[in-house]
Amino acid sequence: MQINRLTQQIQFIIEIDQLKQVMRQTLLTDGSRRENSAEHSWHLAVMASVLAEYAPEGVDIFHAIKMLLIHDLVEIDAGDTFCYDVQGNDSKAEREAQAALRLFGLLAADQARELRLLWDEFEAGETTTARFAAALDRIQPLLHNQQTQGGTWQIHGIRRDQVMKRVAVVETGAPELWSFVLQLIDDCVTAGYLRDDTTLITQDFRVENY
Amino acid sequence: MQINRLTQQIQFIIEIDQLKQVMRQTLLTDGSRRENSAEHSWHLAVMASVLAEYAPEGVDIFHAIKMLLIHDLVEIDAGDTFCYDVQGNDSKAEREAQAALRLFGLLAADQARELRLLWDEFEAGETTTARFAAALDRIQPLLHNQQTQGGTWQIHGIRRDQVMKRVAVVETGAPELWSFVLQLIDDCVTAGYLRDDTTLITQDFRVENY
Repeated sequence: MQINRLTQQIQFIIEIDQLKQVMRQTLLTDGSRRENSAEHSWHLAVMASVLAEYAPEGVDIFHAIKMLLIHDLVEIDAGDTFCYDVQGNDSKAEREAQAALRLFGLLAADQARELRLLWDEFEAGETTTARFAAALDRIQPLLHNQQTQGGTWQIHGIRRDQVMKRVAVVETGAPELWSFVLQLIDDCVTAGYLRDDTTLITQDFRVENY
Repeated sequence: MQINRLTQQIQFIIEIDQLKQVMRQTLLTDGSRRENSAEHSWHLAVMASVLAEYAPEGVDIFHAIKMLLIHDLVEIDAGDTFCYDVQGNDSKAEREAQAALRLFGLLAADQARELRLLWDEFEAGETTTARFAAALDRIQPLLHNQQTQGGTWQIHGIRRDQVMKRVAVVETGAPELWSFVLQLIDDCVTAGYLRDDTTLITQDFRVENY
């Protein structure tokens, strides 16, 4: 065992504790507070384990879980960018690439490279495993928004077409879950939790308190 | 796909969101607040991935990660029992067994059984994989207590002999990490973060605010 290598790993483990303080827009299912990115990553990893049977052929669930566990680490430096924030998303890639360099760079070169490849694979969304992981990352906030009667959709005045664009990856990433997702979105529109595209924007649902 | 089966899985995924509200005694590394059991489980799963190279022969890392992801779920009903709380630990087993029945029972029988076996294996601590997982579960709070200049040790007046008993599983569960753990504990005693066994108990470090 190289002492220096372990020291680097311990430093990395201490550093990533900060992900517990990166707040997402999503509310907990009881609406009591916003979710942080560490507990979100835990939730996704459990989902990957429980919903593994719906993964398309070729998906490596262990690999997907490792990806989901680290996919948000860059937010420690770059912050969480709300998925419907157009301006924030323009600069997101550059900010997150810098963060990846610093954070994964805390580890020895081989391990830094391993985690960087995992993160790059998730971001690129080209492999079946990355697409399955991304599908779960889209489904979880849907469940939270449904449980909180619209949650962040209501706060930010989000419409069905925006959500549909966001969850599109489920159709190819987890096709067996696609009809469930479509039904869930329909139900949310029917219940008034999510604005339909055709809704005349006569009222601004946006509130200041977020 | 059986619709009913998926409905049960989604219900389970929504239910376990509550783990984000179960507070542990451990403080975040910056001391700003207590850690919750969901983000703690995430931290352990990342640790298992990053420290996999120190796992003894026979450890299945994917299995360890699945175990760590669900090992605290029973706390949703049973609450987190502080490891040094003798009275609380007397009733812990019964409370947690009831919780396991209800929570895993939200899933279809085969999947409920799979998660129950994972949890039972962790609790029994007899397999090499369960012991490696338990070792990580002991090391993480050590790091947090060191980073917070004694954190919960100071709050509850914990002594070195209590910590040594608690971390003993590392010696067999992750022997390659044992000398690191011993050194860390020595350093914490030297720094005054942890009371030595021989310290005369002339002062009560316990505070009311926990």
